[in-house]
This record gives sequence, structure tokens and C-alpha cells, in this order.
Amino acid sequence: MQIAIVLFDRFTALDAVGPYETLGRLPDAETVFVAERTGPVRTETGALAITADKTLAEVPGPDIVVVPGGPGQFAQMENETLLDWLRTTDATSTWTTSVCTGSLLLAAAGLLDGRRATSHWLVLDFLKQYGAEPTGDRVVTDGKYVTAAGVSSGIDMGLTLVGRIAGDEHAQAVQLLTEYDPQPPYDAGSPQKAPAHLVEEFRTNSRFILV
Amino acid sequence: MQIAIVLFDRFTALDAVGPYETLGRLPDAETVFVAERTGPVRTETGALAITADKTLAEVPGPDIVVVPGGPGQFAQMENETLLDWLRTTDATSTWTTSVCTGSLLLAAAGLLDGRRATSHWLVLDFLKQYGAEPTGDRVVTDGKYVTAAGVSSGIDMGLTLVGRIAGDEHAQAVQLLTEYDPQPPYDAGSPQKAPAHLVEEFRTNSRFILV
Repeated sequence: MQIAIVLFDRFTALDAVGPYETLGRLPDAETVFVAERTGPVRTETGALAITADKTLAEVPGPDIVVVPGGPGQFAQMENETLLDWLRTTDATSTWTTSVCTGSLLLAAAGLLDGRRATSHWLVLDFLKQYGAEPTGDRVVTDGKYVTAAGVSSGIDMGLTLVGRIAGDEHAQAVQLLTEYDPQPPYDAGSPQKAPAHLVEEFRTNSRFILV
Repeated sequence: MQIAIVLFDRFTALDAVGPYETLGRLPDAETVFVAERTGPVRTETGALAITADKTLAEVPGPDIVVVPGGPGQFAQMENETLLDWLRTTDATSTWTTSVCTGSLLLAAAGLLDGRRATSHWLVLDFLKQYGAEPTGDRVVTDGKYVTAAGVSSGIDMGLTLVGRIAGDEHAQAVQLLTEYDPQPPYDAGSPQKAPAHLVEEFRTNSRFILV
């Protein structure tokens, strides 16, 4: 079971690492980080680089495609090399997935037309502009397309998909091993729960935060 | 505010990336990944490498030290270069922290003597052997030492510390931006909650899983 996780300049690390740490524990998983070019690919802060071990062209037929998001996603929206790879791999993938603004890349590739999908809460409207039907859910499955909300939601998406593929017990074992028993010290993780003025500030400044 | 996140061969990615994605969003944060040598450092699966941008020697005085865990931790327990660096940086750090089995490295360096601390649920007894007082809590603060339980708990630890350093509102903003509104599809993230036979299997095979 080959899992390809896409990297691009200024991606968000947890978007990619949540699915890596869950899907990557599927039986017989072979995870590979891919990008246009091999070598280190930096996150939006510049402080973290994950190595792309293969080029997109070297991984033409993964079973699972994972597309993270991050501020760098906007610069990829007309990158035909990446969009073509998403379309080509989607033709044979078992599951095509995204975390955060990664769903906008799937949508830009035309893969989410008319499908229910989710994304970071700040960009749900963009998803609609690209032909998808945004929902506010944390993990959305429509056919073989599994999209997750912002950043940390890739952990929930990964566990959900592990359960679908390998059964509940294997998913529970992954949850236990990664000790995923969340106890956030605040309850501000969604626009419905966070203080309204914080939500408003992010909405006002979203073009600085996300691009 | 300089944050040094330690890397070593066969670390667990999410242990490091949870704190990176939370603490790294502190105001004026400068996060740096450090290791004995610069260059890519691979996780226990071999599929993911994060770049160490500085050697330990090049980062002698971080404000916050973060030590992740992972199966590679055991091989570091007598690595005097690393243990010396932990002792030296601890002498001037504001916060010394760990995720998962990273607390065993802090304990091996003598930094947790008589202190309450936590670790991955499978190794809490080891923590006692090294002089700490293990608790089953997810995030434990004793003085300037903040230790977190297994793998994913570094997100909770990071948010907790962001709140302590920069105030509740900043921590809530980080939680909202990373959309940390966990909705795990199962409730099996701790040995108290997971099916008993899974807990037993992990305990029986822990030396294969963790080393």
C-alpha cells in the first residue's frame, strides 16, 4: 500500500505529519514524500524542512494520495505539473485525500466538482468557487475523496481512513500507540467555539495569514 | 525567544512537529531543529526526514528546549554529547520540555530527579528507574520542566506552554488557526480507554515497538 504525501514550498508541517503518523501505520504501508524536485522542502515559517525523497514523476501510481495545505498552497493553484500529477494519480488511486487548504488543490485539479468536501475554516468559500460543496465537518468522505479541515484535523482523517482500510481494531491500536487522547487546555479550536473577536481578526487578516 | 527542537536517528515525527506547530507560533519565536550533525534526520519508519539546521554546539542557549521521543531514544541514553548538551542548555533555559520517551533522555541527563513527569504510557516505569516520579497525566509541569505523554500529546503540551508564556488569548488563537478541535473516530487513546487486549499486546511486545 503506497502512500504519497505531497510537499511544496511553504506547506504546513502538521498537515503532512498527522496523516503520516496514522496512515503510515497501516499494515504494509510504504510512505513516500514527493515534490516536484527531491530534497528539503520548507514550511511557511522556514524553520522546518522535510525531505522529498522522490519526484512526482517517480511516483506515478500511489494507492493513497495525501495533499497537505499551508500558505504555499495558493502559489500552486496554477502549477500544471502538480495539478496534472494529481489528476493522473487520481485516475488509479484507491483514496485521494487532503488536509487543510490542500483540498483547494484537489478542487483546482477538477477532482472535487460537485463533491462534498472540507478545508481550513478560513477558506471554505474558496472551495465553493472551485466547484466543490463545502461542509463545516472536520473529516468529509465523498466516494474515494477524504478531505479534512485545518492543520491538526489530518490526525482524525488518518485514523478514520485507517479504520476504513484496516478495520476498527487496527485504527484503535494506532490511536493507542500515538496516545491520541486529546486534552486541549482551551476549547477554541473552531470558529463556533473560539472567542468571536479572534475569529473576526483572522477573517480580516486572512490574506496575510494564508498566502 | 529561541526554541531548540532536538532530532536524533529514529525519532517520532509528531513528537517534534506538535510542539513546532504550537510553540513555534509564539510571538517572536525563532525555532531551530538541532542534532549532533546537520542534515536530514530520519524517523523510525525511515520514510520521513527533517533537516537539522544547526548542530547542538551551535545552539548553546535556547530559551526553550524540546526533546521528542521515538524508538531511537534508547540508543541515545548513554550519548554523553547529547546528555551534556541537555545539562548545559538546561542551566540557562526558561523551559525544558519533552514529548513521549524524550522525558527518559531528560531523566538520563539527571534533570528530572525527584520531579513529577510523564512519558509514553508504555515506559512510565523506566522514568521511575531514572529518578523521576511518573504520573499518568497527559501534560505535567514541575517548575520549568514540562513533560508530555505519548506522540500526539506534544500538541497539548505546546498549547499549554503558549498559554503560560503569551497568555490565554494567544494560545486560543494558535488553537483556532491550527483548527485543533479534536474529533477522534474512536476513544482508544489511552490504556484506560483502549480495549484491554490491545493494551496487553503492546505491553508484551513493547521492546519490539519502542527500541
